[in-house]
Amino acid sequence: MAINSTAEIYIGKKAVMSYVLACLTLFHDGASEVVVKARGRSISKAVDVVRILRENFIRNIKIRGIEIGTEVIAGRNGRPLSISTISIRLVKEGST
Amino acid sequence: MAINSTAEIYIGKKAVMSYVLACLTLFHDGASEVVVKARGRSISKAVDVVRILRENFIRNIKIRGIEIGTEVIAGRNGRPLSISTISIRLVKEGST
Repeated sequence: MAINSTAEIYIGKKAVMSYVLACLTLFHDGASEVVVKARGRSISKAVDVVRILRENFIRNIKIRGIEIGTEVIAGRNGRPLSISTISIRLVKEGST
Repeated sequence: MAINSTAEIYIGKKAVMSYVLACLTLFHDGASEVVVKARGRSISKAVDVVRILRENFIRNIKIRGIEIGTEVIAGRNGRPLSISTISIRLVKEGST
């Protein structure tokens, strides 16, 4: 992976630690920025991933920005359904 | 309530619409800023409250800032337990 690349992680149904380890791997492989993304009920888990990562693994990770938004998906019967999203942008201090 | 006051809403176990209505009431009563706070599993609900409020009720609400953090509470057996928190700061455009 090139230096100064941005990687994205989508939070889903797996255990929190799976995503923490995925973030660690990305930073270790040279990503300068990792964006943690989630929607719906997984939003809480995304915040947990960032908390655990910063508290227990890489203390020099900074939150560069947090965005919340809306995504429209096809719900039951094909009706459009609005769902909340979050996007948490992390950078390792020292990288640019 | 005085003009330019900041109000806080803590998201808990009630239905999403209860909190949406609470926000509406606060803005209607003159709050210039409302901070939506939640922790743990309620974080997703906090993001839903903000989304529904902005999509369906007050379109000129801006997100001034989003913070995520950690709170330490007493868990089972009195052991300290870290819990994720979110704080979403909302302002009504036109108010200062």
